[in-house]
Amino acid sequence: MNEPKSLFLPEDALGIVTDLYQLTMAAGYFEQEMQDTATFELFVRTLPKNRSYLIVAGLEQVLHYLTHVRFSSESIHYLRTLPIFHHVSNNFFEYLKNFSFSGTLYAMPEGTVAFAGEPLLRVTAPIIEAQIVETYLLSTINFQTSIATKASRIVYAARGRDVIDFGTRRAHGPQAGVLAARACFLGGCNGTSNVFAAFKLGIPAVGTIAHSWVMAFENELNSFCKFHETFPDNTLLLIDTYNTLLGAKHAAMIGKKLKGVRIDSGDLINLSREVRKILDGEGLHHARIVGSGDLNEERIDELMRNGAPIDSFGVGTEMVTSKDAPALGGVYKLVEQEHKGKSIPRMKFSEDKITYPCKKQVYRAKDDYGNIIKDVMGLEGEKNEGMPLLVLGIKDGKICYHLPSIHEIQYNASENLSHLPASFKRLKDAESYPVIKSQLLEQKRQETEKKLRNQL
Amino acid sequence: MNEPKSLFLPEDALGIVTDLYQLTMAAGYFEQEMQDTATFELFVRTLPKNRSYLIVAGLEQVLHYLTHVRFSSESIHYLRTLPIFHHVSNNFFEYLKNFSFSGTLYAMPEGTVAFAGEPLLRVTAPIIEAQIVETYLLSTINFQTSIATKASRIVYAARGRDVIDFGTRRAHGPQAGVLAARACFLGGCNGTSNVFAAFKLGIPAVGTIAHSWVMAFENELNSFCKFHETFPDNTLLLIDTYNTLLGAKHAAMIGKKLKGVRIDSGDLINLSREVRKILDGEGLHHARIVGSGDLNEERIDELMRNGAPIDSFGVGTEMVTSKDAPALGGVYKLVEQEHKGKSIPRMKFSEDKITYPCKKQVYRAKDDYGNIIKDVMGLEGEKNEGMPLLVLGIKDGKICYHLPSIHEIQYNASENLSHLPASFKRLKDAESYPVIKSQLLEQKRQETEKKLRNQL
Repeated sequence: MNEPKSLFLPEDALGIVTDLYQLTMAAGYFEQEMQDTATFELFVRTLPKNRSYLIVAGLEQVLHYLTHVRFSSESIHYLRTLPIFHHVSNNFFEYLKNFSFSGTLYAMPEGTVAFAGEPLLRVTAPIIEAQIVETYLLSTINFQTSIATKASRIVYAARGRDVIDFGTRRAHGPQAGVLAARACFLGGCNGTSNVFAAFKLGIPAVGTIAHSWVMAFENELNSFCKFHETFPDNTLLLIDTYNTLLGAKHAAMIGKKLKGVRIDSGDLINLSREVRKILDGEGLHHARIVGSGDLNEERIDELMRNGAPIDSFGVGTEMVTSKDAPALGGVYKLVEQEHKGKSIPRMKFSEDKITYPCKKQVYRAKDDYGNIIKDVMGLEGEKNEGMPLLVLGIKDGKICYHLPSIHEIQYNASENLSHLPASFKRLKDAESYPVIKSQLLEQKRQETEKKLRNQL
Repeated sequence: MNEPKSLFLPEDALGIVTDLYQLTMAAGYFEQEMQDTATFELFVRTLPKNRSYLIVAGLEQVLHYLTHVRFSSESIHYLRTLPIFHHVSNNFFEYLKNFSFSGTLYAMPEGTVAFAGEPLLRVTAPIIEAQIVETYLLSTINFQTSIATKASRIVYAARGRDVIDFGTRRAHGPQAGVLAARACFLGGCNGTSNVFAAFKLGIPAVGTIAHSWVMAFENELNSFCKFHETFPDNTLLLIDTYNTLLGAKHAAMIGKKLKGVRIDSGDLINLSREVRKILDGEGLHHARIVGSGDLNEERIDELMRNGAPIDSFGVGTEMVTSKDAPALGGVYKLVEQEHKGKSIPRMKFSEDKITYPCKKQVYRAKDDYGNIIKDVMGLEGEKNEGMPLLVLGIKDGKICYHLPSIHEIQYNASENLSHLPASFKRLKDAESYPVIKSQLLEQKRQETEKKLRNQL
């Protein structure tokens, strides 16, 4: 009988976790003896609907990948069998055997507030290497940035109340649940239900009981008492299995040691008020109310505007899939090439898409209060007063970046957001933050486009 | 310096890839000496907008997980450190050391056409085991089913033209890209750009060049010739880097050996027509046109209705994120419990959610032409003429199911869909397929609810 496949990522063969065309191009460059150094930039052309900024996330997994990407003999053997590689020389496969990333990475640190068009990563490496890594980099940054951004909106709506990630069951596979837990914490969440993520990241693991616990006992009260026996200091009870208000009364019977209750369905505004009354009526002012069930930033905003006495929000599906904008359209484009010691700017200008050429840097301007007011996208190294946002991550294949802890990143993200004026953070109809191209960059673009059009 | 973390799933500790509450409940059941056998069913309450059926997917990874789920000593050590487990006895952690899944799984085979409310999986096991596995099962089935379903809609819209998965870069992390590639193939795609997925699954890997190849050479024509040198039999060229029609002319200069061209931007209807004319004008009738760029079932349907001469569609973001419906709301609910040799039906009836009690089976009725016309959801073992859809997957922790190949699954999915009348497959405003509860099941529900309400 066939063994079922896990399809877990191959730690020794991350090189083939890529699109085939990266490898055909790699073979092509190899066969053409093109040893140019190329610079690619990863950026998001247009922000999704209702997004006015991004919280950059995923750099740590990018650093892991770039320092671990290899081709196992088994994976090379597979490539050799593909008809498309039929005319490719043996030397290329020998090259893959010793493949590792030897280039340079500049990146916006995780937790940076970024905007459309700005490079989040800049890779400079032999063109083959820079090409092969594209797919993994995109999928890592696109996903985590998308989720960290969504989480930051939800945390913003919660106005200081706790937000917990409950989303693994609805994430795009078990691995996405782990990465989402990381991105959510980075975006401001207080913990996750995902035990493995909590373990590996050193962040709070949260959770007590589900409906099945309540259903597994003779009746609700009995199930609550049994739970309290085993978890006397952590008795947070789910009260909506049968009837929420009756559930609140049953929970209150636990007495002073009751830590809180969770409501997972129904009209949370009214139910939370009624439940609060029941708990307060029994003197259980300290008992917390957790709200959950298809929550997102809009619903939480509504709950808060209506003064719902909810202390903590458990958010799942909507956050870990960024449901209203489930994909971030990050792209990775060639912007410069060193050919025989000469730098050649590169760009694309098809019908509806244009890219700016050359190695770029983003310079961020602040006002006297520390608020960020404008970004200038210019050439790397040009004179500019703003603070450069892209920092060195990898040089000659080696990490030369002090990895912050996830707590530091969370702090930085929150600090950065606090300096973004409120008009840019509104959940809907936020103002568009000004990102300006420097004169030098604009000039370069015009020159390059003219030159390329002449060559067409 | 800290090492960057991969956050890859821990093959030796899949037990902690779960929500914390599964483990607190497990500890609670353990401490309460509750050794009841429980049955949980996984089902989708309501289908997402514009979905009228599901293509079930993910069972193979569920089988892998259920036969591999363990707790490593390191993961148990971590659990011991959590304050919430403070009062839990040492015996529970000893129990986790030897944990494995010893239960029974019934499942709809992958590729089955399923509908709202129908159990896709049914797990019967000691309640602790059945509880711990919930999160992983949900996230596996929810994701792959969601993507296989989306892919089947896209393939349906393509009316027999090829559909290729190009989505890894926009999937929810690199692992999600691999699982999506599997689900897309299962749902009817012809191949994937994801090399690792193609390798592991034995399905076609597809892809030639990106814009960067074209940009990396002196000019477009030069880049095309260079590619043709290395890949004489697989020269499929991307022609929209600068100007699509000029690109088509450059591609045509390759001559008879040109395999095809890809258009990735602009008005695909008009461009594909113009490009076809250019190719045909050079006698390159055999050269294929691939269309890509933000395609989904609606856009492909529009292209096909307008007779766009596109032979193959490369679909990414929209398919691998199921962008219009990025989450499937599968749930996993306790439906029955063996307590001291007695079967107790279990159900939930909170304000807005109800579950049906007891072990269920889905019986599918066909008309004389083999078309499926109605499902009856009844009790396991009840007399019913329809074909039962849930089959045995695991018994006493061991797989007893012949794993079909991915090609067989794809064939089955396509066969099954071909017997679903067209009115249920319309991309929009499809009819709702009738799923009826059997009399016996309805009776059980009423009895159980009455009994539970009396106990409240």
